[in-house]
Amino acid sequence: MGLYIFFPPGRVINAGKSQHNEDQACCEVVFVEQRPSPRGWLSSREGGGELDGGRKGFYFHYWALFDGHAGSGAAVMASERLHLHICEQLRDLVEILQDPSPPPICLPHDTRAGSAEPNQVSSTEDHGEVPNDAVPRFHLEKAVSHESLVIGAIENAFKHMDDQIERERASQHLPGGCCALAAIYLMGKFYVANAGDSRAIIIRNGEIIPMSREFTPETERQRLQFLALLRPELLGKEFTHLEFPRRIQPKELGKKMLYRDQNMNGWAYKKIEEDDLKFPLIFGEGKKARMMATIGVTRGLGDHDLKVFSSNIHIKPFLSCFPEVRVYDLTQYEHCPDDVLVLGTDGLWDVTNDKEVAGVVMEVLMSYEPNDPCRYTMVAQELVVRSRGVLKERGWRLANDKLGSGDDISVFVIPLGGPGNYT
Amino acid sequence: MGLYIFFPPGRVINAGKSQHNEDQACCEVVFVEQRPSPRGWLSSREGGGELDGGRKGFYFHYWALFDGHAGSGAAVMASERLHLHICEQLRDLVEILQDPSPPPICLPHDTRAGSAEPNQVSSTEDHGEVPNDAVPRFHLEKAVSHESLVIGAIENAFKHMDDQIERERASQHLPGGCCALAAIYLMGKFYVANAGDSRAIIIRNGEIIPMSREFTPETERQRLQFLALLRPELLGKEFTHLEFPRRIQPKELGKKMLYRDQNMNGWAYKKIEEDDLKFPLIFGEGKKARMMATIGVTRGLGDHDLKVFSSNIHIKPFLSCFPEVRVYDLTQYEHCPDDVLVLGTDGLWDVTNDKEVAGVVMEVLMSYEPNDPCRYTMVAQELVVRSRGVLKERGWRLANDKLGSGDDISVFVIPLGGPGNYT
Repeated sequence: MGLYIFFPPGRVINAGKSQHNEDQACCEVVFVEQRPSPRGWLSSREGGGELDGGRKGFYFHYWALFDGHAGSGAAVMASERLHLHICEQLRDLVEILQDPSPPPICLPHDTRAGSAEPNQVSSTEDHGEVPNDAVPRFHLEKAVSHESLVIGAIENAFKHMDDQIERERASQHLPGGCCALAAIYLMGKFYVANAGDSRAIIIRNGEIIPMSREFTPETERQRLQFLALLRPELLGKEFTHLEFPRRIQPKELGKKMLYRDQNMNGWAYKKIEEDDLKFPLIFGEGKKARMMATIGVTRGLGDHDLKVFSSNIHIKPFLSCFPEVRVYDLTQYEHCPDDVLVLGTDGLWDVTNDKEVAGVVMEVLMSYEPNDPCRYTMVAQELVVRSRGVLKERGWRLANDKLGSGDDISVFVIPLGGPGNYT
Repeated sequence: MGLYIFFPPGRVINAGKSQHNEDQACCEVVFVEQRPSPRGWLSSREGGGELDGGRKGFYFHYWALFDGHAGSGAAVMASERLHLHICEQLRDLVEILQDPSPPPICLPHDTRAGSAEPNQVSSTEDHGEVPNDAVPRFHLEKAVSHESLVIGAIENAFKHMDDQIERERASQHLPGGCCALAAIYLMGKFYVANAGDSRAIIIRNGEIIPMSREFTPETERQRLQFLALLRPELLGKEFTHLEFPRRIQPKELGKKMLYRDQNMNGWAYKKIEEDDLKFPLIFGEGKKARMMATIGVTRGLGDHDLKVFSSNIHIKPFLSCFPEVRVYDLTQYEHCPDDVLVLGTDGLWDVTNDKEVAGVVMEVLMSYEPNDPCRYTMVAQELVVRSRGVLKERGWRLANDKLGSGDDISVFVIPLGGPGNYT
C-alpha cells in the first residue's frame, strides 16, 4: 500500500509503503540539453534557451506512477529511467521547440548540419539543382505543430523504455511488467501519457476533466480481435478471436449463441461450430476481464516473457507499450490554488470514483490556508487512507462498510495554480 | 444536386435532382414478421406483437442516404435493399425484442426449437445430464441488452448488403461504391448507423447532439496503417504504411523527415531510407486526404473492383462495410415540434457546419405553425438551396460569396416531437 505525494518543489514522500508494494513512482525536474553537433541548424541565431552557463536547453517537470504486476522489476526500472528516455527524445528538438515558427518537415543530413537554412525545405538547398517539374512541389504539405512533436517524443520514449527492459531483463533480473502513467509539464502545457489502467483527472473549479482513459481487454477489444484475426498463429490453437458472453460447452455445438466479432459493437447469434469451443481471446467483465485468460491490462511496459499458463503462447504481441497522450494547456485558463491534477493507480480508482476524489480534494484543501504547501500532501494522504479503508474482522472496510482496495494505491496531487511554480 | 425530404407519414420528395446525381435515398416503414418455425421458443406465451391478422412482428421506420462514387450502381442497389437486409436480420429477434427479460445467451438447436425453455441456459435442459462440476457454471456470464442485439443486427445487415453487391455486381452492372447513413426508429429508440462521410445530428432545444462521425483516411489512419503493417503484401510494393507530411524526393535519402507510425498520434523525425520513398498509404489533408492516392472515404458499400490507378492493387481490403451505430432514446426526453434529426451527405456539411444547420432549422421552423407538416420539408429545401448557392459568373456561390457545394446534396429532416408519429 503506497503513497506518493508531490510536495513542491519536487520532493517525493513515500509513506506507509509495505514490502510487497509493486507500485513505483518518480518525480523529477529534468534538464534537456541540446545534443552537441558540429553546427546546429539554428546555431547561428541569437538567444534561444541559453541556460546553465552556456548549455542550451530547457527544463521539464515530470511525475509518473508505475503499477507493477508479476514482480516489481520492470516498474522499478521504468521509474528510474523513463524520464531519461523522454529527455533523450527531446534533445534533438531543443532548438525546434524554442523557435516559434512551425517545425521543419525535413532536416538536413546529420553530416551536413548547418548547410541548410532553417524552415527551408530541402528542395532548393542543393547546389542550384533544377527542380524536376515547374509546379510548386509541396502544395500538399501537412502542418505539424510543436505540440505533436512533444507527443511523438513521449510516445517513442515509452517504446525505447520497453526495448531497454527487453534487452536487460535477463541480466538485470526484471520480471513482470507495469502500467505507466506520466505527466510532463513543458513550456506551458501538461502532457499526460497513459499506458495501462491508471488514471489522471484535472479538478478545476470543481469541474472534472478526464486526462486519460484505461487500456484493458474490454476497451481495446477491437484492436486485439483485429490482430488475432490477421495473425491467428498468435492464438496457438487455444483461443478464438470471437467474443462470447460465457464459455461454451461441447454439448452446445450446433446451438445458436451470442457472439461479437472485431468489427461489431453489437451482439448477434451464430451457430456454434467446433472452432467456437476454444477459449475466447477476451473473457470476463469489468475488473475481471482478461486477455487470453491471463492479463487485465493491455498496455504497459515489460511482460516480454509473459505466457499463457502452462502453454507456449506469448502475450506480449498483443500488448502495446505506446501511451495515449493528452494535452492540457495551462495558459488557457486562470487557475486558482484549488485546481489540481490527480494521478492515481487503479487501487485508488477501483474504490473511489472521479466525483468522490474531487469531493475529497475540495474538502481537504478547504481546511488549509491557500498558500500552505502541505495542503496537497494532505489531499493525497487522505485519498489513500479513504481508499484503503480500515482493517476490520471482515477485511479492509471503507466508511460505507464496502470493501476497501486490496491493491497498491499511489497518488500524486499536483497543484496547477498553487504555490508550485513550473517556470 | 439532390434533395430528399422526409414528409410524414413517410413520403420522399425528390426535388431538383440532376441526371448525374450519385446520391440515393430511401424512406420506408418496414414490417418485421417473425420467421416461421416449427414452434418458436416463445410461441407458447400470450400476446407479444400479434399484428396484421395474426402475423407476429413489429414495425420500424427507416431513412437512409447513399452517397455514391465512381458510378451510382451500388448506391441504387443499397437504397433498394438495405432496409430489407435489416428486416431480415431482425426477423429472428421478434420474440426476443418483445420480451422484457434479458435476451437468452444461447438458443436451442434450430431443429429442436421449443424443446428448451426461454432464458434457461442450456446447461440443465438436456435429459437430466449430470453437470461436469459442482460449481455454478455460468458465474462469468455477460449481460447483453436488447439494444445491442439491434445494433448487431444493423451491423450484420450492412455486411450482407455489401456481400450482395459483391455477388451481383457483374450480372446487375453495379459499378462503384457508396457511403451509407441510415436512421432506424424501433421501439422508442433511434439507431443511427453510419459508414462513410455523411453526417447525422440531432437538434434539441437549440442544442446540437452529434449522432455520427466520419470515416476517412484521416480518422481511420491507425486502423489502416495497422492493417498495412500486418499485411504488407496488400501494399503491392508501391506504398509505405508510414505517414509523411509530404512526398519525399529520392535526393532526400539520408535526411531526417517527420513521420507517423500506426501506434503514434504525435510526429517524430526519422532518417529517410529507401523504403520511405514509396507513396504513403495515407496522404493529404481534410477533404483532400486519400488512401492509396485513390479514395477519400474508408467505410461504405461496394467498391469491390476498385484498384489503384494503373496498377493491380486492390483497395477493398482496406475499406470496412461496417457502420458505427449510435443510439438515441426518444423516451428519455420530452421533445417539442422544433426538435429534429438531420441526415445529410457530405455535400451539405462541406459548406454548412453543424451550427449553421441548426440556425437554418430554427429560423425556418419558426416561420411556420408548429403543427404544419410542411415545415420540415421547407427546412430540408432551405438547407440544400443555401449549401448549393447561386450560379454566378465564377461558379456556384453562397450568400457570403464563398464557393457553394459542387457535390450532390441530400438531406432528411426528421421531426422528433412533431406531427410525425412513430408508434
